Amino acid sequence: MIKARVTVTLKNGVLDPQGKAIEHALGGLGFSGVDSVRQGKVFDVVLETSDRAKAEAELKAMGEKLLANTVIEDFAVEVL
Amino acid sequence: MIKARVTVTLKNGVLDPQGKAIEHALGGLGFSGVDSVRQGKVFDVVLETSDRAKAEAELKAMGEKLLANTVIEDFAVEVL
Repeated sequence: MIKARVTVTLKNGVLDPQGKAIEHALGGLGFSGVDSVRQGKVFDVVLETSDRAKAEAELKAMGEKLLANTVIEDFAVEVL
Repeated sequence: MIKARVTVTLKNGVLDPQGKAIEHALGGLGFSGVDSVRQGKVFDVVLETSDRAKAEAELKAMGEKLLANTVIEDFAVEVL
């Protein structure tokens, strides 16, 4: 078994209304020194293979096909 | 300025219907060896302070108060 994490984040320049909302909410809770907040997703994936190279390739393909919208999002694969 | 990442994940044992849906979708796309998928959130936060200890404490408080639902979620703070 191989455990991995795929982290999906918005590309630079893409507006993040959720992040903005969180920024304002944090301000409302008294956190004053917040310059910016950007929200993304993480996927903790367990694969049955024990071949790290195969796992890495599969995770990249999963990112491209499903986990990330590659028009506006970047993703990073981390085999743990 | 300090950059940090807060990663929020479901606690063990908490059902993850989104993760399950992604698992099935990956199977449908031909990814056969997927044992499990669990989805979480990441927050990339930029703080105006340059005091790492202060930043860490603030980020923990943000996690407790807003970014994570600590009943069902864990969060990890990473000052970059």
